[in-house]
Formats: sequence, C-alpha cells, structure tokens
Amino acid sequence: MNFQINKDILLSNLIVAHKALSNKTPNPALQGIKLDVLSDHLIITTSNSDIAIKLVIKDTSLVIKKQGSVLIPGKYFIEIIRKLDGLKVVISSVVDNMIRIEADRSDITLNMMDIDDYPELEFSEKIKSIKINVRTLKTIIRQTAFATSSIENRPILTGVNFKIDGNKLTAIATDSYRLSQKQIELSEVYEPLNIIIPGRSLDELIKVLENNNEMVELHFDQSKILFKYRSLLFQSRLLEGNYPETSKLVPTEFPIIIKFNKENLSTAIERASLLSSRDGNNAIVKLQLRQDNIVEITSNSPEIGKVLEEVYPVDEIIGAPIKIAFSSKYILDALKIFNSSEITINFTGEIRPFIIKGDYDENMLQLILPVRTE
Amino acid sequence: MNFQINKDILLSNLIVAHKALSNKTPNPALQGIKLDVLSDHLIITTSNSDIAIKLVIKDTSLVIKKQGSVLIPGKYFIEIIRKLDGLKVVISSVVDNMIRIEADRSDITLNMMDIDDYPELEFSEKIKSIKINVRTLKTIIRQTAFATSSIENRPILTGVNFKIDGNKLTAIATDSYRLSQKQIELSEVYEPLNIIIPGRSLDELIKVLENNNEMVELHFDQSKILFKYRSLLFQSRLLEGNYPETSKLVPTEFPIIIKFNKENLSTAIERASLLSSRDGNNAIVKLQLRQDNIVEITSNSPEIGKVLEEVYPVDEIIGAPIKIAFSSKYILDALKIFNSSEITINFTGEIRPFIIKGDYDENMLQLILPVRTE
Repeated sequence: MNFQINKDILLSNLIVAHKALSNKTPNPALQGIKLDVLSDHLIITTSNSDIAIKLVIKDTSLVIKKQGSVLIPGKYFIEIIRKLDGLKVVISSVVDNMIRIEADRSDITLNMMDIDDYPELEFSEKIKSIKINVRTLKTIIRQTAFATSSIENRPILTGVNFKIDGNKLTAIATDSYRLSQKQIELSEVYEPLNIIIPGRSLDELIKVLENNNEMVELHFDQSKILFKYRSLLFQSRLLEGNYPETSKLVPTEFPIIIKFNKENLSTAIERASLLSSRDGNNAIVKLQLRQDNIVEITSNSPEIGKVLEEVYPVDEIIGAPIKIAFSSKYILDALKIFNSSEITINFTGEIRPFIIKGDYDENMLQLILPVRTE
Repeated sequence: MNFQINKDILLSNLIVAHKALSNKTPNPALQGIKLDVLSDHLIITTSNSDIAIKLVIKDTSLVIKKQGSVLIPGKYFIEIIRKLDGLKVVISSVVDNMIRIEADRSDITLNMMDIDDYPELEFSEKIKSIKINVRTLKTIIRQTAFATSSIENRPILTGVNFKIDGNKLTAIATDSYRLSQKQIELSEVYEPLNIIIPGRSLDELIKVLENNNEMVELHFDQSKILFKYRSLLFQSRLLEGNYPETSKLVPTEFPIIIKFNKENLSTAIERASLLSSRDGNNAIVKLQLRQDNIVEITSNSPEIGKVLEEVYPVDEIIGAPIKIAFSSKYILDALKIFNSSEITINFTGEIRPFIIKGDYDENMLQLILPVRTE
C-alpha cells in the first residue's frame, strides 16, 4: 500500500471517522482505523458497538502508487496527521508490519494492527429508503434527541422514535419526565415505518452532517439504519422493542395559556435554579400566575436563600391563576431549542403535564411533567 | 447596610475577589465574601490559606444609603450577580440575618454568614517596598512561575525566588529538573532582598493585573508580600526557608551552540512526543546533531512506533555532533515563553544541563537537565 494525499483532506475525513472510533471496547480491533486503498479511491472505515462510518475519498490530490488494506491504531494516526506540517502526506506499508507516514521533514512509523481481526461490516443499501433535506434532518435531531433518557434501565427511551405515515414523519423522544415531538412533511408518500434510533448515534450524526440543502438518504431494515450523505455512509444499529404510545400523554384541552418572551422566562428560571436545595440539574422551581396577571418564578432553599422573579407575560392571559412546580433543567432544555422569540405555555392543571409551543416552530411540541410539592 | 451600584462594576470586582475565595477550607468563613459598606466607598475582601484580596470600590454609580459590614456566601453571591439582568443592583441587609439583592424584576435573599467568624486580616504597607511596571512584573511571572515544582515534598521549590541586588531584580524558579531565570533592571537602587513567593499566588496575581504601563508597589516583611495596584491589594504569604543556590548549576562554557527556528523545533518535538512509551507530559525525546549538520529529533516506543524529525538549524553550528535526551514537556514549556522567533540551545555535554536563550529575550535563561538513556 502506498499513496499520497493532501493532508487537510485526509485530516477532515479522519475527524469524521473519529466519531465511530472506540476508546474502550471488548474488541481491540475497533480501536483501529481501516484504510482500503483501491485503484482510484480510498476508503476509511471505523466502527463501535453503536455506529459504523465509511468514507469514500476521491480527491484530485490523491496519488495511488500501490493498492492494499491496513488497520492503523486510530488515536495515534489522527493525532499524527493533525500535528503534521506540510501540504501533502505520503502513507505506505513497510517491512515488519509497519505503516510509514512521511510529510515535510517528518518520518513516522506506526505498528500496524492485524486487519484480519477487524469485523466484516455491511454498508449495503436496504430495501426501504426515504430522502430528507440535510438541514431538516439536523433540526429534527437537535429538537428531539436531547429529551432521550440517559439512563439505561429502560433502553428503549434512550432512542428517538421515527414514524412515517404517508408523507408525514414524526420524531418523538421522552425520558418519561418530558417529551419532545417534531413533525415534518416529506416530499413523497412512503410506506409506514416505525423505528427507534439510539440518541447517541444521532448526536454523533449531526456533528458530521453539514448545513446545506442537499438530501440525505435513509436506508433501513429491522436492525440497522444507514444514512448516505455525499461521500459518507453512517450506519447505526436500531433499538429493538416497542416504543411507548405517547399520544395519550399529550393533553388536548388547555384552560390556561400564557405567552412569554422566551429570553425573559429563561433567565428568570436560570436565576431561580441557582438557589435550590437540589443541586445543579434537578433544581425545582415554581411558577405562579398571580391574580394581577404577573407570573412569579420562585425557588427556596432553607439553608441558602430564596429567589423571587417577576415575569410579565406577553399579550392577554387565558385562564385562571395557577401554581405549578417543575425541574428547571427540563424547561430550560426545551426553551433552548425554540427558534421563536415568543413561546406559549399551555397548562391543563397544577399536577397535569404542560406543553410549550412557539409560533415559528410549527409542528413541534415540548411536554413537561410537573413535580408535586407539598 | 444598603447600597446601590452598577452591576457590571460589582461583577468585575467580584471576579477578581473570586481568585482568593476558598472552595474547601478548614475555616468555612473563608467561603464568604466580606463586604464593608463605608460612608463613600465599598470594600470587598476574600482570603484563603495562601492569598488575601482587598478591593476598594469608589464609583460614580455607588449610592450608599446605610453603612455596615456583612459576610456573604461567596459562590452564590458571584453566580447571582453574574446572572442578573438590568444595569444596577441594590444590596441591603434585611431581617432574619438575610441579605437582599434586587435588580430589574429579580428579588433574591441569601442567608448571611456570621461576620464574627471572619479572620482579622492585615493589609498594612510594610517597611520595605519596591515599584515595578505592571507589564514587566507580569512578564517576570509568566517566564518563571511555570518552572516551579507542583510536588509538595520540597515546598521551597513551589515558589519563585525574588532577589534584589542594587537595581537588579532576579527571579528564579526550578523544580530540580529545569530552571528558569529572568533578570530586570529596576528604576531605583534598593536594599538587598531575598524572598520566595508561592508560584500559585503569582499565577492568581497575573490573572488580575492588567497589561499597561502603570506601576505596582510591592511591600514585604519576613512573612508576607503585598502587591498594590490601583484599587487592588493582593497579599500572599511567603515561603520560609533558604532557596537553593542555583548559580553553580548553570554551566558557563558551551562548546556546542545550535540556533533554531523556535516554531520548527517546537512542532518537531511535539510530534516526537506523540509516540513515546511514557505517556503525556513525560515523553522522552532525543536530539542528535548529525555529521551533516542536520538535527534529528527522535522518539521510539516499541509497542506503538517511532518518529524521526529533521530540523535544519539556522546559521552556522558551533561544535561537534552530540546526542542528548530530555523530557519533551520541559523543553516545550521553555520554548513557549520566548518572544524570540529564533532561539539558541547551548550544550556543554551529553549528560550536562543545557540552556536555551533568545536574542529578543534579554536576561532570560532556561536550563534543562537531560535524562540518561542506555
């Protein structure tokens, strides 16, 4: 194996491949980056227990002198390429099972890993597939994946449920304390679909997708989903099982509706969460709509102190005074992903879930369960 | 106690005071910020076992309605002021031993700490004092404090030795593996001085000093040093004991002198340190001047691989071929603080300390001990 390539092209591809590189894994071969040098292109492959990435590199700077396949220690390979000087790099396999990296005045040799230990990976296109605009896909993920559970005791909730019905795609995530749902219209009508994609896989996927108007192809079968975007193949396992039916959780009647400036509400809740007896993320904050139509956000920690914030609603308020308590993290997480500068909170009752909506965030719904306080 | 002040003025002072705030301390009172409200100014005081900070605030935005002194939980106070909206903040002591913070639509009360528990701190000017330009002082600290020891088994080496002889100030730091020395001329002749300032205190000090041409006053006695700069009083304890006599360690004859482009040498050593059997900071790298007057930087880790870097010296080389091994961290740390783009390394022999100098870094000397390899 022997080829030469522009160093920055190689590095930008390695940075993408890094997302699927295992640090600690029962299979040490997965700490390697597989490099296949073919007649006119290069393939970089990485994988861990959740995702696999395959990158096909065709570049004008690529000069292939000898074909071949090698498995290179991933962490060291990326760090070396990152630190190299010079415009181009020459990579070749040499005696004693070593790989040689030459650039400018650097001459580096790395022990290779045994390529026979690397698992056989299938990146084949599946029977079913859909197309989504890449920017839209990134928005769906950004607006749902944060609400997945990070606790493994209900594995199904660590994923985002993608459902297709006709030309409607609905993505839902919940950790059973809050729920995020986003719906979009696809450009075509597809067969019904119901899959669960691990939230962590989606978090990695959006890091490697660009923000433009190109299309991403999603191919799937019962156990895997493959995202095709430009020269990138990004594959994730799917979660097995039935996603809970969440539609019944969402209230349909809202006797109390309050509209807020999103920024004012966020900063008031952030300040209130500073002084809460429970530390950090689980700070409990109370919201009260007073008779005078001003909203109070309060917190109280007997050992430290208390916060009282007044927030003036935007527009007329619909409904009667209410007092409700919630985890500040959940509402702050939800507010962050709205594009609208004004949002409405729709309440059903003091111990019923409430939902947040935004004028400029069509077909998105954030639901949060209140907490009971004495 | 009751006063009003511009929020940003208060915050910028609290950020300085934070440097001396204790997180964990045998004395819980030191987790508090002491606030003295006097007839026409405010004093903020913080301290820990190493340093104490006193800030005198006189600002046009300051409106004092009632004088008084309080001790406020430091971490919460700073976080609250940081998160407040609005231009101004009103702070007052209220019933039940509480402090009230009002800004915009926020109304926050914090439990006070018992001010009687706060230690009596002396910030008095000492008999001996000198003056240094603030920019020069920051340079001295930046160029020496990094070389102090972070290990406490020889406490004296965790400090920087400041010596005055006539109008010459010499600062020296060493952890016994490398040494950094910087000398400056003072504008006046002073009495002889020999003190050791904790490196950690100096690290905090440079964070709060600005970069301008004003003067800092240094006042000291046997146990403390007080830095006076604008409205800031920054006091540190001194280390007790005799600093080792380092002048004998510095070789005076250098049969081999090589001049390098600093950037080329740094990046070559950084790459070589990537593949070293010892991880991270203690990577051992070898430097060899070949017969053909090219310098080789090499590292070798049998399990991982090896690096060979060629660095072309600048100018003629003085002396014969040499091969020397050293810890990459020490030489990279040293190179970083040079302002010169070209530096010379002056060697005495393969197992003797070598020194680094830079044309534009007058009166600065970096000494590094080589390591023995087989």
